[in-house]
Order: sequence, then structure tokens, then C-alpha cells
Amino acid sequence: MADIRKTRCLDRVAAACVLMLCFTCFHVTSLKSQLFTRLGELRYTTEPPIRYKTLFFDQKIDHFGFLEDATFKQRYLVADQHWHQPDGPILFYTGNEGDITWFCNNTGFMWEVAEQLGALLVFAEHRYYGESLPFGKDSYSDGKRLNYLTSEQALADFAVLIQNLKSTLPKAQNSPVISIGGSYGGMLSAWIRMKYPNVVIGALASSAPIWQFPGMVPCGDFYKIVTQDFAKSGYNCDANIRRSWKAINNVSSTASGLQWLSEEFSLCSPLKNKSDVIGFKSWLQETWVNLAMVDYPYEASFLQPLPPWPIQVVCKNLAFDSTVSDQQLLHGVSQAAKVYYNHTGSCPCLNTSQTATGSLGELGWMYQACTEMVMPMCTDGVQDMFEPEEWNFQNFSDECNAVFGIRPRADWADTVYGGKKIASHSNIIFSNGGLDPWSAGGVTENITHSLVSILIPEGAHHLDLRYSNELDPPSVRAARALELKYFQTWIKQHQKATGSATISKNNKITKQNK
Amino acid sequence: MADIRKTRCLDRVAAACVLMLCFTCFHVTSLKSQLFTRLGELRYTTEPPIRYKTLFFDQKIDHFGFLEDATFKQRYLVADQHWHQPDGPILFYTGNEGDITWFCNNTGFMWEVAEQLGALLVFAEHRYYGESLPFGKDSYSDGKRLNYLTSEQALADFAVLIQNLKSTLPKAQNSPVISIGGSYGGMLSAWIRMKYPNVVIGALASSAPIWQFPGMVPCGDFYKIVTQDFAKSGYNCDANIRRSWKAINNVSSTASGLQWLSEEFSLCSPLKNKSDVIGFKSWLQETWVNLAMVDYPYEASFLQPLPPWPIQVVCKNLAFDSTVSDQQLLHGVSQAAKVYYNHTGSCPCLNTSQTATGSLGELGWMYQACTEMVMPMCTDGVQDMFEPEEWNFQNFSDECNAVFGIRPRADWADTVYGGKKIASHSNIIFSNGGLDPWSAGGVTENITHSLVSILIPEGAHHLDLRYSNELDPPSVRAARALELKYFQTWIKQHQKATGSATISKNNKITKQNK
Repeated sequence: MADIRKTRCLDRVAAACVLMLCFTCFHVTSLKSQLFTRLGELRYTTEPPIRYKTLFFDQKIDHFGFLEDATFKQRYLVADQHWHQPDGPILFYTGNEGDITWFCNNTGFMWEVAEQLGALLVFAEHRYYGESLPFGKDSYSDGKRLNYLTSEQALADFAVLIQNLKSTLPKAQNSPVISIGGSYGGMLSAWIRMKYPNVVIGALASSAPIWQFPGMVPCGDFYKIVTQDFAKSGYNCDANIRRSWKAINNVSSTASGLQWLSEEFSLCSPLKNKSDVIGFKSWLQETWVNLAMVDYPYEASFLQPLPPWPIQVVCKNLAFDSTVSDQQLLHGVSQAAKVYYNHTGSCPCLNTSQTATGSLGELGWMYQACTEMVMPMCTDGVQDMFEPEEWNFQNFSDECNAVFGIRPRADWADTVYGGKKIASHSNIIFSNGGLDPWSAGGVTENITHSLVSILIPEGAHHLDLRYSNELDPPSVRAARALELKYFQTWIKQHQKATGSATISKNNKITKQNK
Repeated sequence: MADIRKTRCLDRVAAACVLMLCFTCFHVTSLKSQLFTRLGELRYTTEPPIRYKTLFFDQKIDHFGFLEDATFKQRYLVADQHWHQPDGPILFYTGNEGDITWFCNNTGFMWEVAEQLGALLVFAEHRYYGESLPFGKDSYSDGKRLNYLTSEQALADFAVLIQNLKSTLPKAQNSPVISIGGSYGGMLSAWIRMKYPNVVIGALASSAPIWQFPGMVPCGDFYKIVTQDFAKSGYNCDANIRRSWKAINNVSSTASGLQWLSEEFSLCSPLKNKSDVIGFKSWLQETWVNLAMVDYPYEASFLQPLPPWPIQVVCKNLAFDSTVSDQQLLHGVSQAAKVYYNHTGSCPCLNTSQTATGSLGELGWMYQACTEMVMPMCTDGVQDMFEPEEWNFQNFSDECNAVFGIRPRADWADTVYGGKKIASHSNIIFSNGGLDPWSAGGVTENITHSLVSILIPEGAHHLDLRYSNELDPPSVRAARALELKYFQTWIKQHQKATGSATISKNNKITKQNK
């Protein structure tokens, strides 16, 4: 899904390994949409330095069976500089499908509110990602070892870790815990509140597409939002991207056209055949999706730096009338792509063969998509700017079986996580950005008074979790303020229910009666 | 825990197989208390004939991993004669550790309210019990095959089955489902509402000791309640049972004493040594516990028939003053035991070697007790009438490891099922009988307005789930009426929330707006 570092201009062994899987098996597949929609690394120059301790917890490999009783080292990061004891709150980041240090560095919101709440920060790494590998370097070696890579196991890891922290950290026994996460981490944040309300008192689920599952939302909505982002960012921008696919087909039908296209896009490996062209188009499609996810109002880094509102910059290169020739159009597209891949001009060539790559995390997410995280996506070329492609579960399942020897269970997420029937839960904030395609599968209306939606019309993918920035739109400032207010409400509810107190920021104990 | 048929006067191969495990490894063990507290088969002459269909559902062996993708046939029973369609409610029995037909036959309450609610009845068998064996006759053959015997897997079975029924049964798509269960089945009933509130709208958890886990309730309360039942049922009854252990020790210290004891109790196999005497005392202890669980106000069958209020009958044989001799006392004890084992005089001898036996289900529960269902029990001989025995988790764990090659996880139930922190859940009735020792681990006070406790002071183990009887005390009649009222409230909530309607008993559609 999201939040995996891109290695587009890097040449990593791991990436190549993943690649082989992606492009031998998935290049024209239904998995494409899952793999093409990942949020890369974002680094801000405005980030303050942060300090945390890196710790490891002995976690059971299997929480749901007793035969496998071995443990692995789950990594987690702790920052206690603002923690008010006793019983100060704990903000717990439910790690996504990637290296937890990256999430720690890129979730400035938690660092900012820690001070205001007197909170302990904990960032827990998701099993099978980063350094939290149940079987070390062999964790991905076969289906038997991969078998413990599920969201249920990850949630159990988080719950067990929290219980352990509360019983072992001094004066934390009565600390209220709030889970926080973005994207898949946001889904986990919501789900841990649903499944372990004894462990967390509330959750912030930012850009969490908990409804991007079969039968819950139309499969085309995701790409419609991508398209809308482009449509409103420049003259004819979406229309010209929609036209570009046919232009590519036309131009690439001759050997000279292939050569021209390769040169125009400064491709590291020239396009040689039809299969390469399919991969090239997928790579472009992913580019537009990624731009939609990171269409932030300020300069940010995504391996290469991006300008503020990058889609507007991209669209300046695509503002053609419909009379433009195929080659003129594609020149614009190549310039647009280079905004994304080569804004600073430091990337000597663009590598389309690394379209769907990433770190080990990428392979992990592919496994998760092939098991529980079945997220239908489709395009029709009319309401979106992409080539039409239907969602075909059987094809998807066959591909998964070919790669991993397992088959996805289409209905399981609905059963285990409740689908649209979640109204009996409480204390969850679902925040979504209007620019973020993942909002298509998110909760964008209040469900009850304590299952609330916060919309950030000018926000891309979990903008609210990022450090505040002077260029932040008012909507994200308001969202963060409201989120903080909910946190405070939940903490007060907890204090009232338990008769405990946290020490407020001015160190006055408001109530302490344990 | 409960609800397993006793085979005390039967000589089954399966029983002997289980026995070997019990008495070679567990005879003086901490597991004892778990094994000694099972509710046997209860059959009433007043039962009306019931009709149901027996069906099987292809259930995944592993819901929490994708490598094992095979299925097994889960048995479930369906009775639709009272079901009002469309959208009439479904009462779903969450099967315990035993043959589901037995629960179906012995949960008369569901049959009685089905008519009043126009409900479909479903009784789902718990995996690894009855005919729902994931690996057929090999299901218990090794740790690898036993690995899928957990409450989480069982709950997932129930949830998946319910989702399937609702989507495949005609006009059931919007049927509200209420889970019902007693004892361990009651725990499952509460837990399925907690974990899958999208699947069941409410739960009746009868005699469900969801807090009989480490650190939640004092380990001695269970046996205190057993003792109180005897204390109030006859003059000096508890005191004389308390004294009986030393009397047994005294008398059995000589060969002639052993012979006398064996003859006095009409034992099938005479006591030969100290180890036999330990087993004999365990067998007696279990007898008193079982009596406490089935101390019903009317005649009932427990393999052998029991009289109404059987403890009162037992205690008539134990109404000695403190001056009575050891042998006089033990004569009374033997007469008391025979009330339980040989009320009709048809059992030629009493078989102490089958103390902890049962069906395959018994072995299954032993496995569950050795993994998740860690239920500390202890006695002190002061506040209870038993020989002092502390709870020792390490010993317990070592025994489990010796038998199954696995170790229990003491804290897991607390983490996964919430322990005392369950107030955020809703729509669960916890009913408990004042005579039932399992009420020690039950919820006996209201937690919130929708997590409610119903107490039945004159009730033994899940009396409320049984067929109504003219000898029922008013408290159980009131309990059943209140339970029905909650069901109706939940169904109305569901109708209001979904805009659907069930057809009420008089077939007037009150609202139908889907």
C-alpha cells in the first residue's frame, strides 16, 4: 500500500530481487494497482532533530498457536523526554510495512503533541519489516516462514508490547495508551482499538483505507481521485495524461518510435518490445499515483526533492490543446515525469525497470496483499485518466499462487475487521486528505459521536501526521488541533474511569486516587 | 472446564487413553482442578422432542495463516421451524468443548424463546470436538495437528459460519444474530460479541468464567463456593467433608484400612497404595465439585439420575457431630458419594480410576487449559473443605510440557480478551448462579448499562439455559424473562439502525424499509 521507500534511482540487490517477482509475474496484473501505490520517503528540511532509544522486545513468533513457541526481537523506539510520570499518556505508533525509524522520523505530529500531553512516544516496528524479522535474513525464504506475516499477528505484537511496557516501565501502570498510525499503520491503529480496547483507549487512523476491501467501495474511486488531482492542477492535465497511453502505443509501434521514446524519457534501459512498453506505462501510472499521494503544499523529499504542490508543476508541462501531436504530447509527459524523478537534475537516467521495487518491505506488502489485504482497484479510462483495467479477483489469486503458493481470502478482512459494521466501536478518529487517493477507501463521514471523520480538503496522504509547516493549509492545522482535543478527551475519560491522573503540563496533579 | 459427558461407569477405550495422560502425569497436579470440574450430561424427562437438521460447513483449518489452506467439515445444527422471514433473528449457540448435539438437546431456553422471537436456531460445534475434527481421527495425534485448537480459531469459525449463513440463507441477509452459550461456550459467546461485533448484535454468556484467569480473581473462590453449597445444605456437612481427608489418610495407613475403605466405597479396583489413595481423594473432590455444579432443584440425569437438590440428599449422610469416628465418618462419605454415583443402585461398583476421564473432548480441554485457558485454582482447607493445595503455575506449565510439549501462556487471555477492562464493549448479558462455583470467575456486577449481570441465587451451572421446569425457582424464571427482554431490545436496536424489520409473532410487519 503505502509508505515504502522508493529506490527508483538506486540499484539495490534487494530491489532487484523483488523486481524479478514483480515483473516476471505481475507486470500486467491485478496486483499492479497494489504495488503502484506506495508512498515513498519524505524528508523535510524543517525537521527538528529527534532523540529516541532503540529497544528490542522478545515477541512470540506465533500468537495464535502454541507449537511455535520461539520468539524474535521486535524493534521499538522510545522517546521519554516529555513524559510526565506517573501515568502520563503513551502515544503508540503502530508501525507500517517498513523500517520503523523512517516512520519515527516522519511523524512529526507525535513529536509535537508529546510535549503538550506530557506523553511517552513509542514507535513499534511491524514484524517482517525493518529489523523485526522473525527468522532473520531467512524470514522471506519460504512460505512456512512467511506464514506469520499477518495483520492479526502484528496487532497481537503491539498489544503484548503495550501490556509489557505498562507493567514494566516505572509508574506507567495506569498510563492511557493512544494508538496512532498512517496508511496501513492507520488501519492497524484503528484495528488495535477495535480488537484490543483494553489496551488502547483511542486511536488516530490517518489516511487509513479500512474500506478498500471487496464489496465496500467502488474499485474505481481510487484512480478517480488521482485523476481529479490532476484535473484541477492545470489546463487539460488529466485529459492529456489520458491521451498519452494511446500516444505511447502509437509511437512505440515502430522501432524508431521505441528509440525516440527511450531517448525522450532518458531511460536507463531503452525500450525494446511490447512487454517493455507495458512496463513503461505501468511505471508512468505509478508516477501519477505517487504524485497524488505526495501533493504537499511545501517542498519535500521523495528520494529526489519535490517542489511545493508538485502536481501543479507537473501539469505545467501538460497544458496542451487536443490538437497536439503524439510526440509533442509525450515530450510534455517526459518533462512532467522528470519533475518527479529528476527535479534537481541529479538523476542521470530514469529506470523504468524498478517501477514496483522497494525494500524488503515491498515484498512483505506483496505477501500481505496476496493474503488478507485484498484491495480491489480498477480503471475505466472515462472517469479516470488511465487505461481501462477491470478488477479480476481470480487473476489476482492465480498470480499470488504463482508467486507465493498461497491464495488471498477475499472476505476475511470484512469478517475479522468488521467492514462497514463498526458502529459499536468507539474512540477512533479517521482523518483523510481530499487529495489522497486512499481516501476512497477511508471513513469520510462520522459514524458515531466517537467514531469520527476529519477531512482535510487540501491534504494528501496523512499530511496531518507530518511536522507542522508554515505552508500548511488551515484545514490541516484545524485537523491536528481537533485530534489533540480528542486525545485530551479520551485521556480525561480514562482518568475518570480509573480514578487516576496524569500530571498536566504545569505539573499540577489534578486528581490522584488509586 | 464444563459440559463434558462423564463416563464414570463406562469403560471406553478413549477414556482409558485420556486417563493414562491424566493419571500418569496429572494425578497430583495443578491441572487437577481444571479436570475435576466438568459438568456432565443432563437429561430431563420433561424435554420435549426437538427437530433439527445436521449440516456441515467447509471451514478453514487455519484462519490466522495462509500456508495451511485446507478445510474441515464443521458440524452445525439448524432448526428453522419457528423462523420468521425475512430478517427474523438468529440465535447462535457457540459450541463448547464437546459434542454439539448434546448442547442442542440441553439448551432448552433457546428452543423456548425461538418461538417467541420467531428465531432461527443454529448450534455450531467447536472445532476438535464431536464430529468437527480438523484432521479426522488424527486430530489429536500430535502437536502439529493440535496446533489449531484455540479459542481464537473457534471464534473465527463461528464468525465465518454466521457470515456465510447470512449471505446464503434466503432472506437472512439482515437477520440480527445473538450468540448464546454456557460455561466455556458462554465465554465464547461473550468473546464473539467483543471480537466480532459486526457479526453478532449481542450475547448471552451464561455461567461464563471469563475472569477465572491469572490475577483476575482469587484462586480460592471457586472451592469456597463449593464449600458454601455444602455448608448450607445440611448440618456439619462441609465440616465433615473437611475432616474426611484426614480420616482417609488415617484409615488408609494400614493394609486392612485400605481394604475396608475399598469395600466401604464399593470400589471396582481396590486401593493398594498411597498413590491410589491420592487418586481416590481427587475423585471424591471432583464428586463434590460436580454436585455443586448440578445442584438443580429438580430431578436430573448425570449419567446416573440425581434427585432434586442432590447436595441436600448427600448431606443427610454427613450430619455427624465432631465426635464421630473416622470409620463412621467415612461410611457417611461413601453413602454420600453413592447418592451421586449410584442413586438408582444400578452401578455395581464405583470406578475411581476414571476420575478425570471423559470423551475426546476431555483431552481437548486439557490441551486448551495447557495453552490459553490458564485458570488458577487453589484450596486452603480453612475457607474451603478441601486439602490445602496452592496454585503453582510453574508446576502446571511443566506438566503441560510433559504431556503436550507445549507451555501455557499465562497472560495471553488477559491481553486478547480484555480481562477486567471490557467496559467499552456492549450488549452482553453475564448470567451466573449463586450455587455455581464457576460464578467465582464470572461477571457478577453490572459493568455498564449494556454489559449486565444477572444473578440467580438458587441457580447452579447455567440453569437459565435449561428447559423451564415447574420446580424452577423464581430467580431463574425472572432471569430468563430478563434475558428475553434484552434480546428484544437488541433486535429493536438493530432494526432501528438498519431500517429493517423482523416479522413479529403475529406476522404484522412493523417496519420494512431496506
